[in-house]
Amino acid sequence: QNALLSATGTTIFTVMSALANQHQAINLGQGFPDYDGPEDVVRTAAEALLDGRNQYPPMTGLPELRNAVAAHNSRFYGLEVDPNAEVVVTSGATEAITACLMAVLNPGDECVLIEPLYDTYLPVVKLLGAVPKLVRLSPPNWDLPRAELAAAFGPKTKAILFNTPMNPTGKVFTAAELAFIGDLIARHDCYAICDEVYEHLTFDGWKHIPLMTLPGMRERCMRIGSAGKTFSLTGWKVGYISCDRSLMPNVAKAHQNLTFTTAPNLQRAVAVGLAKDDAYFAGLSAHLQQKRDRLAAGLAGLGFGVLETKGTYFITTDVRPLGWNGDDVSFCRTLTEEAKVTAIPVTAFYASEEAPNHYARFAFCKGDALLDEALARMERWL
Amino acid sequence: QNALLSATGTTIFTVMSALANQHQAINLGQGFPDYDGPEDVVRTAAEALLDGRNQYPPMTGLPELRNAVAAHNSRFYGLEVDPNAEVVVTSGATEAITACLMAVLNPGDECVLIEPLYDTYLPVVKLLGAVPKLVRLSPPNWDLPRAELAAAFGPKTKAILFNTPMNPTGKVFTAAELAFIGDLIARHDCYAICDEVYEHLTFDGWKHIPLMTLPGMRERCMRIGSAGKTFSLTGWKVGYISCDRSLMPNVAKAHQNLTFTTAPNLQRAVAVGLAKDDAYFAGLSAHLQQKRDRLAAGLAGLGFGVLETKGTYFITTDVRPLGWNGDDVSFCRTLTEEAKVTAIPVTAFYASEEAPNHYARFAFCKGDALLDEALARMERWL
Ligand SMILES: CSCCC(=O)C(=O)O
Ligand SMILES: CSCCC(=O)C(=O)O
Repeated sequence: QNALLSATGTTIFTVMSALANQHQAINLGQGFPDYDGPEDVVRTAAEALLDGRNQYPPMTGLPELRNAVAAHNSRFYGLEVDPNAEVVVTSGATEAITACLMAVLNPGDECVLIEPLYDTYLPVVKLLGAVPKLVRLSPPNWDLPRAELAAAFGPKTKAILFNTPMNPTGKVFTAAELAFIGDLIARHDCYAICDEVYEHLTFDGWKHIPLMTLPGMRERCMRIGSAGKTFSLTGWKVGYISCDRSLMPNVAKAHQNLTFTTAPNLQRAVAVGLAKDDAYFAGLSAHLQQKRDRLAAGLAGLGFGVLETKGTYFITTDVRPLGWNGDDVSFCRTLTEEAKVTAIPVTAFYASEEAPNHYARFAFCKGDALLDEALARMERWL
Repeated sequence: QNALLSATGTTIFTVMSALANQHQAINLGQGFPDYDGPEDVVRTAAEALLDGRNQYPPMTGLPELRNAVAAHNSRFYGLEVDPNAEVVVTSGATEAITACLMAVLNPGDECVLIEPLYDTYLPVVKLLGAVPKLVRLSPPNWDLPRAELAAAFGPKTKAILFNTPMNPTGKVFTAAELAFIGDLIARHDCYAICDEVYEHLTFDGWKHIPLMTLPGMRERCMRIGSAGKTFSLTGWKVGYISCDRSLMPNVAKAHQNLTFTTAPNLQRAVAVGLAKDDAYFAGLSAHLQQKRDRLAAGLAGLGFGVLETKGTYFITTDVRPLGWNGDDVSFCRTLTEEAKVTAIPVTAFYASEEAPNHYARFAFCKGDALLDEALARMERWL
């Protein structure tokens, strides 16, 4: 069997969700809302099953959705892409990330990754025979270590894969940071895979900036969005890649070998979602910001160290102020078993054992009553 | 960019479907029905969107569907698998094939493939750094060349990937052929990836036999099924893998890096489909057998050499008896442009240029009126 996969664990999200179910814990681990997506989007998906369009849609996506992705890029970022030659619809952002890595990496190529990182990045880079070059952000501020990042780029660098707004840190990369990264990409003549699934989930006036909109970056970036995150429908697994026409053929050919295409009824519904008015998108982040504030205040009140979250579904907490002496994995297990609340140990987002091991990540994309109940359970436990 | 993908073409199915649309041709190329799937299955998928279960389902699939896959294996093949530890639901059979290859192959491993072959097999084997070993069936009877197959296995063989009922040949592997393959697998201590998406589409009393049901094969096989083919809903992209518990962890970890999971409403509907009575499955093949007979008779009447089809959606025809002097690719282009009927050139299912180049594949999974109109168009053209 494949040695890399044999040595990889089952994703922490599945492990912790299973543990949560086993202990009837409130699951603030895996990042999914406990509320449903917009009614009109869901209804469109249901109706779209009933008019006989259930066979293979075009490999790169239905024209309706490719047009909607292009219009969305233009509306929010002034980014103009050709819906026919610069957009590929995928079966979720996970597939999109794998397809983009597959499109550009050759065995032996180096790929720069930024820790803490989402748990599919590293195995996929390795499975493709490429060499990961890891650079770490330092908690609690998660600033970009510029000298180290520059040192990670070299003659063999083919790509950088990074995530903004960033899971699990809640960091939103600044224009200055993006310009610094863009400069490295241009100087080393390489590509960027931009995991931007939380693009609409930013708070306190922080605005997401796609690297692809910076000067010189249009031909080098593969920008990834996710209907699951943008419409609170994580189970639908509809993602979309925007990239230059020089990159799109290889991205599409990777996709053709990974899933080939994606259910047409879901694609049609996501097209309706992307056309929603500005109030929808503003409301989405305002709604989540309130939840962030509610959970952050509660956790701080319980004695957690609460790190700043500028975007995403997640709050990272420092468990040392609680007097916890063990590691984050045992903290999250104990919290699940005893307090009946589940969080994700942040070491799961690091490649090596030597990582900060006193952080736990909580998802706040949940109903207020559930957040309050989770806080009450933790209070009783502490 | 990735050299293998840069050297690969866009899938022939997409190329020919685009050409068909451009010329308003009847598309007997890409294999999809022009009729809808069972009404109860489609309705279940629509209703399942509306009760609030639109977030991530479990990574290996909803329990409902895993149970249904296990029950289906038991009912049709007497094959008992544990729904909790031996089934993985995927976003279509294309993902399933890639996940199974990824689960077992290491760079440098050899993988035996049988030509003619489906067009994702070879690029995926190569992208994983493995070495394909190709063995050819000989038209028009597509018998298994036993000595050549045995010679393709060696000390580096890790797996064989093959397809029965087989696209594009319509071959259904016999018990004797499967026993021969099984013996090679056991002797070389390797695995089989069994693409069985056409398992219910067999004709004239031919029965599909999963290699996994043969003695000694249960621990070595990854058996792949497809809701798209079994329920005439090719756009849904729901597949399922049945395999021993010793293989399932790596298959699941590959899946976690490819798509992670699949839309819950579609999974719930497919569970309803797999529980349909025997009359449904018998009716499906009887319905397609009539269509095969209709198109085969029509093509023979026009002078095509019609090869025998025991299963799948497809008839392979020899175009030489028509007096065609060029190759199959120009035949299919000309047929699309002039006769306004699209077929697939069978050389697309071969790895090298040196392949039989006088075969065209026609899909018969279409309404009778459309099949008749296609035949009438070709008659006028000839
Ligand atoms: C695909 S399951 C994980 C969901 C997620 O993005 C997270 O919890 O970080
Ligand atoms: C995934 S598109 C191709 C459909 C098919 O299986 C075929 O036409 O051979």
